Amino acid sequence: MRYGFLGPETTFTHQALLQALAEAPEDLRAGAELIPFTSVATATAALVGGDIDAITAPIENSVEGGVSGTLDVLASHDRITIVAEQIVPITFVLAAKRQMDLSEVRAVASHTHAQAQVQGWIRENLPGAAIEPASSTAAAARAIAESSEEEAEGLAAICSPLAAEHFGLQVLARGIEDTKGAQTRFVIVTRNSRIPARTGADKTTLVVHLPHNRSGALLEMLEQFSANGVNLSRIESRPIGDALGRYSFSIDAEGHLEDRRVASALRGLHRMCPQVIYLGSYPRADRQRSTVDVATADDSYDDASRWVGELSRMITPVP
Amino acid sequence: MRYGFLGPETTFTHQALLQALAEAPEDLRAGAELIPFTSVATATAALVGGDIDAITAPIENSVEGGVSGTLDVLASHDRITIVAEQIVPITFVLAAKRQMDLSEVRAVASHTHAQAQVQGWIRENLPGAAIEPASSTAAAARAIAESSEEEAEGLAAICSPLAAEHFGLQVLARGIEDTKGAQTRFVIVTRNSRIPARTGADKTTLVVHLPHNRSGALLEMLEQFSANGVNLSRIESRPIGDALGRYSFSIDAEGHLEDRRVASALRGLHRMCPQVIYLGSYPRADRQRSTVDVATADDSYDDASRWVGELSRMITPVP
Amino acid sequence: MRYGFLGPETTFTHQALLQALAEAPEDLRAGAELIPFTSVATATAALVGGDIDAITAPIENSVEGGVSGTLDVLASHDRITIVAEQIVPITFVLAAKRQMDLSEVRAVASHTHAQAQVQGWIRENLPGAAIEPASSTAAAARAIAESSEEEAEGLAAICSPLAAEHFGLQVLARGIEDTKGAQTRFVIVTRNSRIPARTGADKTTLVVHLPHNRSGALLEMLEQFSANGVNLSRIESRPIGDALGRYSFSIDAEGHLEDRRVASALRGLHRMCPQVIYLGSYPRADRQRSTVDVATADDSYDDASRWVGELSRMITPVP
Amino acid sequence: MRYGFLGPETTFTHQALLQALAEAPEDLRAGAELIPFTSVATATAALVGGDIDAITAPIENSVEGGVSGTLDVLASHDRITIVAEQIVPITFVLAAKRQMDLSEVRAVASHTHAQAQVQGWIRENLPGAAIEPASSTAAAARAIAESSEEEAEGLAAICSPLAAEHFGLQVLARGIEDTKGAQTRFVIVTRNSRIPARTGADKTTLVVHLPHNRSGALLEMLEQFSANGVNLSRIESRPIGDALGRYSFSIDAEGHLEDRRVASALRGLHRMCPQVIYLGSYPRADRQRSTVDVATADDSYDDASRWVGELSRMITPVP
Repeated sequence: MRYGFLGPETTFTHQALLQALAEAPEDLRAGAELIPFTSVATATAALVGGDIDAITAPIENSVEGGVSGTLDVLASHDRITIVAEQIVPITFVLAAKRQMDLSEVRAVASHTHAQAQVQGWIRENLPGAAIEPASSTAAAARAIAESSEEEAEGLAAICSPLAAEHFGLQVLARGIEDTKGAQTRFVIVTRNSRIPARTGADKTTLVVHLPHNRSGALLEMLEQFSANGVNLSRIESRPIGDALGRYSFSIDAEGHLEDRRVASALRGLHRMCPQVIYLGSYPRADRQRSTVDVATADDSYDDASRWVGELSRMITPVP
Repeated sequence: MRYGFLGPETTFTHQALLQALAEAPEDLRAGAELIPFTSVATATAALVGGDIDAITAPIENSVEGGVSGTLDVLASHDRITIVAEQIVPITFVLAAKRQMDLSEVRAVASHTHAQAQVQGWIRENLPGAAIEPASSTAAAARAIAESSEEEAEGLAAICSPLAAEHFGLQVLARGIEDTKGAQTRFVIVTRNSRIPARTGADKTTLVVHLPHNRSGALLEMLEQFSANGVNLSRIESRPIGDALGRYSFSIDAEGHLEDRRVASALRGLHRMCPQVIYLGSYPRADRQRSTVDVATADDSYDDASRWVGELSRMITPVP
Repeated sequence: MRYGFLGPETTFTHQALLQALAEAPEDLRAGAELIPFTSVATATAALVGGDIDAITAPIENSVEGGVSGTLDVLASHDRITIVAEQIVPITFVLAAKRQMDLSEVRAVASHTHAQAQVQGWIRENLPGAAIEPASSTAAAARAIAESSEEEAEGLAAICSPLAAEHFGLQVLARGIEDTKGAQTRFVIVTRNSRIPARTGADKTTLVVHLPHNRSGALLEMLEQFSANGVNLSRIESRPIGDALGRYSFSIDAEGHLEDRRVASALRGLHRMCPQVIYLGSYPRADRQRSTVDVATADDSYDDASRWVGELSRMITPVP
Repeated sequence: MRYGFLGPETTFTHQALLQALAEAPEDLRAGAELIPFTSVATATAALVGGDIDAITAPIENSVEGGVSGTLDVLASHDRITIVAEQIVPITFVLAAKRQMDLSEVRAVASHTHAQAQVQGWIRENLPGAAIEPASSTAAAARAIAESSEEEAEGLAAICSPLAAEHFGLQVLARGIEDTKGAQTRFVIVTRNSRIPARTGADKTTLVVHLPHNRSGALLEMLEQFSANGVNLSRIESRPIGDALGRYSFSIDAEGHLEDRRVASALRGLHRMCPQVIYLGSYPRADRQRSTVDVATADDSYDDASRWVGELSRMITPVP
């Protein structure tokens, strides 16, 4: 199996893919080949083209919100489905060639984006250190790893925990990000249009276009979920692109296509919306099972169908 | 075929049954036997017991509202269904043995209930006439019919148009009721649990019990209809009988069980309500076809089911 | 104060009025004159005309449902308001001139309506007793009370507990009704358009006409209540009288006009409905306080109004 | 008056500000000073700090969607309000020092972002031209303007129509963007917390946080608008930033704070939501008046308030 991810190596997306593989059955792990891509679009093209078997991409960030690039790419391809999700804490470490005291650190290298997220910590803990830009956090870590002992003297990199481990660096400090608790959610997407079986703690991802020029359409759309007792864990608007004020909605619903309540909500959406794109049903990363009201349990749907079916057999056929 | 009705002969219920037979196919009309009953309960018992094949009973009056007796009896029997409805205008005539001028009328006989509905007209048009009570409007008409010419001199009856015709009386004045436009709706009920095929202008009658102790249950119940684009033409509360404030609802919905939108609403009700009693789908008396939004047309339900069905085939079977 | 009630004396309505007076302040009780009327309509006319100060009438029965006569009369008069409610258990006693064993009872007198409600008990406990019709349960009780000892030998009346007490009879058996737990709710109505102050456990009664020819109007009407967190304890349809399928709704809502959430719901109804008749806010008979969500508490309404008021002061006046 | 805008000069934001000034009264135009800023955040800081009087910023793009930077900055400042909007078509021109035939163009300079949007047109119309990167479309235009006639020979810039005009270039081709019809909406924001008076064709912008852990909260929020007949022309989710799945919503509603229906919806939101940020009411760029149902017209709100006010005066004061 060939797995693409948004690279370079040791990004948080790489981390998400490693987490996913750690949970996967032995046969998916064995011989897995991990291939970095420079964008979600190129990775998706490779997936659709058959060059790789799955991709991992960020979909939602607790600080920045939905990852537009991923949402738009997924919505524009048929026959690819999300089969899993992974949540990765966004945390940084200070790492060096060898263990040293913070007072020994004279220069800190990293990507400007990462530096912005740790500047408070640096100011407080390394007030005298020089800041050296690098093309990526991975590059910063790798440069130190490849330096000689002397060159690396007093040098540290700000990078992901995975980068430190990957390049064999020693961690001087962990959790040095200024905003604690940030997380990014990643999805694993495959081509072969297989939907993992229901686990009871699942999520279903959709993109829904609303009917044009119809006041209250968003309300009606949401009522299809509430009438079936389906909770939403994420809803995000994305422009359709043809005019101001025209939006589609990217949605994560609690439950699996195998759940009657989810299937019923999908049917309702399909009836009322010009377009509904089903992106997959897959186990929730937190394994938390949904609480289902008796009125929207599978049995209730089955009983109701059976009842209406029996009534329907009483209809006199037209001669 | 033996047809029961709420008697005696020449009641408005009798009129409704005659209207229904006039519209029925020849084989249902030929040899029809019409049998008056003293109450809807006894007629229904005869129907359930197999003594008769159908009954006609009033269900809704434009002045008094739902006919509780009929609603409650229908809701308490299984395996009887409404197969047709008839609307009869509630109008009275002044009738006599022979044509005469109003100034010749010296006494007017009728049931007190009918007299109450024409008292304005009588005061204005027959100020000097004596009022004579009768046990029913039919009895008043029959008495005059059976009198000799001399006995009937100056006598008139207030009765239904049907009674005047049935007993061979001459109509002196029509439409003498003080409130114009009153109507009663009647239903024809059969035992054999057959539902007439859809005509495109149909009505479905239900009794629905709401979940106990659940604020907003009525709203949720109505949303099952609105989510499927089904209009209600009648909704009436009836006490369940076990405590104050506990109600069931008697409902006429536009559409037929064969309409996907009606079947879908019924399934929703069955899921959320402790009891749903289906009383039949039948042609509307006014033959007015429902306007159906494209989102709730049969095709939309079928397309949606097909789409979800195709998605479901992508689910990986559990090994 | 002169209090009218649906008579004759010792009816359950009489009982309701006595209960209400027992709870009333001393000055309302002192010198109270209780006057039976033969119908709610005549009592209401006397109230509106100023002959009496208040009336007591049944409004809802746990077995029969809403009392149409009372609902329709209340809805058709301005300037009368419900100021209190009373709930009376519908229960019957077997009473006689003196205590005796059931085996000594040879004849039972009552109104046919009451007999119908105790026939199971009579069949089981007094299989040999003769049934004697009376014009009312009160008349049956009074006749025994006014008989001589010999005449009353072996005679018993089926009547209300109040009638037995009122006419000085001895109770041979209590709670002899076949259906246990039936209750009737009564309202006390006054003319002077005073609304009792809020107690925190109140009810508000309304009659609402829905906009004509507007699908979903009932749903919209109910949403005015739910959007303000107001629960309904009773909703009943009544025909408007001008055509089949045209209904008004008689409603009991939890809360008082002084509650912001109730006032807000009333404003919403007034906007959307062709007619809203306010029939009063009054303490609940069961003294049960409503649970109010923080979003619909008075403070939330006041805060919201203050906030919008402050914003509105920022609007630039048109020069 | 000092007006800040997202620069540099000749950006589409600059264009929006010029459009706004063209519509403004003479006294606002006279002596207006236009000051470019490098980010919405710095411009907003200058506005809040009192250095400038208004800013112009992009808020929504028909292709990319909401402009997160602007939305987030506006939501995080008190006492600044949107007072106007402008819509600018996103269109590019090919411009040169002097008029020339397309076949004479040998090199085309622009910012890479603009080049991406016209690459189809360039491929087709200038297949042989060299592509020269510039730091901005303005810089590309300015460089040609400042070149000598000989230096500028065969050189053209891809820039906004405004840039061509501003730098005195000749337009060789208009509307050369590959995607036609793209538009960006801009807002003009002031500090002094003044809300322009209602014009009848207005828009109100809000940011709303939903109650936490409450299924159906989005539905309830939208119902506050629909219950008051207020349409939404834009709704966008933005992460609150503290956890995955926690969103606020940025909303444009049709109508003005002076409209009773908008004020009523705002009160409802304030009651149910932990935070509601009012960002202003202002004339719609398209001057299109909202259609208002009679039930949500100002008069209906006023009548309803008057009616409930009169009822409330009937409440007996607590002694």
